[in-house]
Order: sequence, then structure tokens, then C-alpha cells
Amino acid sequence: MEIAYFNGAYIPKDDVRISPDDRGFLFAEGIYEVVRWYEGFFYDMEGHLARMKRSLRETLIQWPEADSFPLLARELIRLNNLEKSSALVYLQVTRGAAKRTHSFPAPPVSPTVYAFARDFIPENAGKESGTGIMLREDIRWGRCDIKSVALLPNTLCFQEAVSKGFSECAFVRDGIITECSHSNIFFVEKGILFTHPESVHVLSGITRKNIIRVARKAGIPVKEEAVSKKKLGKVQEVFITNTSGEIIPVTKIDNLVIGGGKPGPVTRIIRERFNDEICSIKHS
Amino acid sequence: MEIAYFNGAYIPKDDVRISPDDRGFLFAEGIYEVVRWYEGFFYDMEGHLARMKRSLRETLIQWPEADSFPLLARELIRLNNLEKSSALVYLQVTRGAAKRTHSFPAPPVSPTVYAFARDFIPENAGKESGTGIMLREDIRWGRCDIKSVALLPNTLCFQEAVSKGFSECAFVRDGIITECSHSNIFFVEKGILFTHPESVHVLSGITRKNIIRVARKAGIPVKEEAVSKKKLGKVQEVFITNTSGEIIPVTKIDNLVIGGGKPGPVTRIIRERFNDEICSIKHS
Repeated sequence: MEIAYFNGAYIPKDDVRISPDDRGFLFAEGIYEVVRWYEGFFYDMEGHLARMKRSLRETLIQWPEADSFPLLARELIRLNNLEKSSALVYLQVTRGAAKRTHSFPAPPVSPTVYAFARDFIPENAGKESGTGIMLREDIRWGRCDIKSVALLPNTLCFQEAVSKGFSECAFVRDGIITECSHSNIFFVEKGILFTHPESVHVLSGITRKNIIRVARKAGIPVKEEAVSKKKLGKVQEVFITNTSGEIIPVTKIDNLVIGGGKPGPVTRIIRERFNDEICSIKHS
Repeated sequence: MEIAYFNGAYIPKDDVRISPDDRGFLFAEGIYEVVRWYEGFFYDMEGHLARMKRSLRETLIQWPEADSFPLLARELIRLNNLEKSSALVYLQVTRGAAKRTHSFPAPPVSPTVYAFARDFIPENAGKESGTGIMLREDIRWGRCDIKSVALLPNTLCFQEAVSKGFSECAFVRDGIITECSHSNIFFVEKGILFTHPESVHVLSGITRKNIIRVARKAGIPVKEEAVSKKKLGKVQEVFITNTSGEIIPVTKIDNLVIGGGKPGPVTRIIRERFNDEICSIKHS
């Protein structure tokens, strides 16, 4: 039986029922976080916790027990017998349930806190051979730095990509490639690794941040500079990153073949170093 | 006891429980509609129904029984003894509940359909004396024409307005005033009524559409043209419109006093004609 966390208690997931007055349901007034469990540890839980607390601050959602996330996540792993599995813990916090009105509930209500853990089978197909992504105008809001559940543009664009045989959708804003529907994106040009700088137009991915660190440690120069759509013909390698997929080489963008259709050497080095880091944490 | 509609049944609202897997809760993948009941009839239910069906199409949400909305809304009025009241019916349709993944559920699941009716006491204070609104950069997504529940930017900006003593927040995109957090906005300059044309940056308000019709019928020239922030010093009247508030005169925008701080004659004529129309429907 799957056990979830809901407003202070660990209960069967089937017993979790969200109120129709929940402002997460009515207004997308909520934030979330996904952290990966590697058969024994969470990778960069500190990074996820810090980002989650930032998302709460930016949306003015009060969750006084936010610091309990690591323990809560660990308990979900234990209760669902996932200790020796690859797993994901998903946490969502909304402003809570109150009579529907655009203004915040006054007096404030308790936030809704919901989390679940689930088994996760890493997909390795695209990781070896590379994958294709599509480009799409970035129609998202102006605060993509907040990890909010207002994800309608993301799912609409991602579904469009999937329906056309692509595995992700990269967004283009004013000619500049920002990020993907649920991944950050990196480019290699003449040995230099490029990715969009932190801004209101991209989510500051935990994997993004760690990849930059790992790449620099491996001696690869990194520039947090955006790449324009026009420049795509000149890049030798592309990859996307996220918590569940880690590093996925991109060998095709729309109709443009990247790097002769094969994952390139810089991507390979970064993947190896990232895997080494995971491995060394596992055995430490 | 408040009765709501939930997935085909009329049940006590307290018994409605949304699944935590609902894509409305997880991804803001849902649309909504609010229709006003005037002590005996819904105003322009046809307009609301058509817009709701458009929102479903644009978000690729399938609700085969969408045409049942008028009957469903009427039944909620009856079951909650609201026939002789001013009331609102709120309807929300989401893609349904499924294991969390950005792509749409495959095979598709049933949509979640939720509706409630509630008593509504029209607020008349601001309608007579005029109200103040603030300006804020339009940080919303690029498909504001869809009446989706991805309303986080709207509530954040509206709350900011309320906390500063304003009654609404008008959005400015590239120097142009688009609309408000949950109202359309009209301007009068030299006797001509201006409002932003239909576009991806504004919701095509039902009241907006009817106000344009009523104004034209009253001999007031209407131009569906946007007004820039710069031009605000030159307008004589401003008002905002929505389903619940109808027509609300604006006498202050940030620190700028409009029309000497009093609602103007064009606004008054339009309000009278709109009220006449409501009155004549009531007695027909």
C-alpha cells in the first residue's frame, strides 16, 4: 500500500483527498519540488530544500515546517520500502483551502502539504543514443524561476513535443533559447559549455547547478550565457538536464542534426563525472 | 447544506474531495467559468458556454457533456435555494486524475468536473464613488485568452493591489494596458470608448463583449484599440468590467486621479443601459 504524507500525517495515498476549495486546485497557488533517491541517499537535498523555501517566499506561502522536508522525504522512502530502489519524492505545498476569492485568505489558513514517494526506473535509451527535441515559442509567465504548479503551458508544449515524436520541448523567447518544459539545456561550442544564466525566464535547476560545478571541476570552461536559436547550427553538442533524467544528450533539434547525430565527447565526460560523483557518495 | 456538482452527481460540497493526482492540482491543467444568476436567470449563459467550450478546445481537455453546463448550473441554483437571490455559479473542468507525468494520460482519463453555486451580495460602494487600481507589469503567460486555472500571477498581483489599498491591478505589457487580474478595462477619451482588442493577451470577457454592444447601441463610438500607459493622463474616464462586479468606475490609477476623482458621464450612461437590459430581461 502506497503511503503519502498529507498535512502532518503519513496515510494511505488513496485516502488523501484535496478540498475543492484548495487554492492549489482553484488558482495554481502552490509550489513543488522533486528530489531523487539513489538507493540510499537523496542527491543534493540541501539544494532542493533551499529552492523550495525560496519558492515559498516568492509566492508568499507560509509553511513554518519547511525544514522538515528532508526528514519527511526520508520517512516516505522508509514507509514505502524504497530504501534500496531508485525513487523520486514529490512534495507540493499550496496556500491552503478557503472560500474562493482572488485575494489571499484573511486570516491566513494552514497550507496544504502533500508528498509522495515512488519507484523510479531510470530510462537509459536516450542517454546512450541521444534524443530529439523541438523548439517552441516560450509562452510561459515572467517568473519561471519560481517552481510553481502553474504548469499548464509546460504540459501543453511537452505534450505537443511527445505527439510529434520528440522527447522534450525547448522554449525560445525573443530568439533566445531559455530552457525546456521540465529540463535545463546546455550547449557546447568549441569546447565551451553554455547555458542560460539564472533569470526570471529559467528555473534554477539543481542538476543544472551541479553540472556546472562538475564541468568546471573537469576543466571544461563554462559560460552562463544564453544561446540564440540562430546560433544552433554552430554548436557541436547539446544536452538537457533534470533531476530524474540527469543528463540526456540531444542529437536533433527540430530538423537540425546536432554533432552528426551522436552524443559528443564533452557530454560524455560530464556524464561520467556526474556518475562518478553519485557512485562515490553511494560508497562513502 | 451546500450542494455541489461533482463528476455527474449533486452531492454535499463537504463530500467533494479532489484526488491529489488531479492534473488540476498538479499542473493547473484546468479551465473554469463563472456565470451570474440574477434572481431568476443567468445573464448571457450562451456566451459563457461558448467560451468554456473554446477553453476546453484550446487546452485539449475532453468533456463530452460540456453542453450540459446550463442545465447543471440551473440545477445547482435550485438545489441551493438560490432562485430568488443574486448568485454565482462556478464551474471547473480539469484533465482528470492520473499518475503524475508531464505528458497527457494515455489512455485518456475522465475529466474532473466540479461546480458550486453561491449567494452573492453585489458590492455597490465602488460602483457609485469609483475605485482605485494599480498598474503592474504583465507577467502572465502568452495565452491569457484561455480561461485557465493557472492563475498564480493573477492572485499574486491582485493581493499586492489589495495590500496597497487598491481594488484591482491592471497589467501593462510593452507599455500597453492589457486588462486587470480578473476584469477587463475600458477608457473614455473625447467621448470614444477604448478597450484592448481580443488577443492572446486578454481574456475575452463576457461582460466586455456585452458592454461594447450596449455602448454602441447607446450611440457611443467604440474602438477596440489598446491604450498605452503614457496616454493615461489624457483619458477622461476609466472603468473595469467583470461578471460579478459588472461595471466599476475607476477614479484613480496609481497616483493619477482620473476625471477629477468622480465617475464620468459615459460610464454612467453605460451602467444605466446595462442595468436597463438586466431589468428588461428580468421582467420579460
